[in-house]
Amino acid sequence: MSTLEFWYDFASPYSYIAASRIATLAYKVPLRICWRPFLLGPIFKRRSGGASAFQNPDDSERRYRRRDVERLCEQYDIPLRWPSVYPRGSLLASRIALLAANEGWCGEITRAFFHANFFDDRDIGSESVARELLTCLGKDADAILAEATSAANKERLAMQVEEAIARGIFGAPSFLTGGELFWGSDRLEQAIEWATRDKT
Amino acid sequence: MSTLEFWYDFASPYSYIAASRIATLAYKVPLRICWRPFLLGPIFKRRSGGASAFQNPDDSERRYRRRDVERLCEQYDIPLRWPSVYPRGSLLASRIALLAANEGWCGEITRAFFHANFFDDRDIGSESVARELLTCLGKDADAILAEATSAANKERLAMQVEEAIARGIFGAPSFLTGGELFWGSDRLEQAIEWATRDKT
Repeated sequence: MSTLEFWYDFASPYSYIAASRIATLAYKVPLRICWRPFLLGPIFKRRSGGASAFQNPDDSERRYRRRDVERLCEQYDIPLRWPSVYPRGSLLASRIALLAANEGWCGEITRAFFHANFFDDRDIGSESVARELLTCLGKDADAILAEATSAANKERLAMQVEEAIARGIFGAPSFLTGGELFWGSDRLEQAIEWATRDKT
Repeated sequence: MSTLEFWYDFASPYSYIAASRIATLAYKVPLRICWRPFLLGPIFKRRSGGASAFQNPDDSERRYRRRDVERLCEQYDIPLRWPSVYPRGSLLASRIALLAANEGWCGEITRAFFHANFFDDRDIGSESVARELLTCLGKDADAILAEATSAANKERLAMQVEEAIARGIFGAPSFLTGGELFWGSDRLEQAIEWATRDKT
């Protein structure tokens, strides 16, 4: 079965849209999703522009981006309430999701964190919120928090970011399949089509 | 009949994609297209970033954008050969298209200029190329070139750019309908859907 790598940042509104849609679309094909949580912050820091479009000093683009996300969420029936903090610190959530990816429950926790950020307006960077979501999923929150914040796992996330850069990723969400990079929630269908294309 | 304003720059690859698709999609609805050629240059100059993504100093994004355009052109069967000069000066073509918009032949000349730039690799900023394309369309090339480069028409194009900025446009292609702004060739279908939405 073909694989689609899904690279996302928990602070990114377009990643939220992709995360809300990818499973239904991929399972229908079928296509294996490889969940790749990472951090945009270090990538933006190295770039000339240095920030997300949602922080663009140009008012027109910033306003437009919010409206664009609202229209897309309406179109796809994705619940949205703008977080009171942007960008929300996505470090802890990413570390936990990275662990989850190894254990097969990354889709669940990913959707839980995104929903907490983009609908419940909760601080997904805080241990208390993470603990609550983990408990909802029936996980041993203490054990997972300890492992997620271990030096080894911190290093793993840093390596994940380096891998993203090395593979040409500069924004989120990004999709990688068969050496092709697709950027933006609006390229999800195209990426899926590419992943399932006859390679002969 | 509803109207969809199509704002585009002749140097913009995504504008080329939109220009190649918009007529077929709009006529099917049906929907009146209002052709609004303008210039991105003065807008980019006023912005913090100051350049198109195709000139982004970050290699990853620049490479990605080219690949993205190539895949989209393949998907939509749009012929593409990268212009040897980027961005191609779009001033003269825009001035001529602006005249054409008043006289009802803007779609024709717009597609002709885009094809000359993005497939035939011709300098659409030169009078000789413009003259040839105008003649192909059965127009009096000398008369049109004189009018296009008159002080009055230059001023009209400058005003068109000011109008774009005043209405929140920061990139191309952009679509405006019923006070809603859509940006990017990948928002064309959504803009058309919006334009034809039941307003009751």
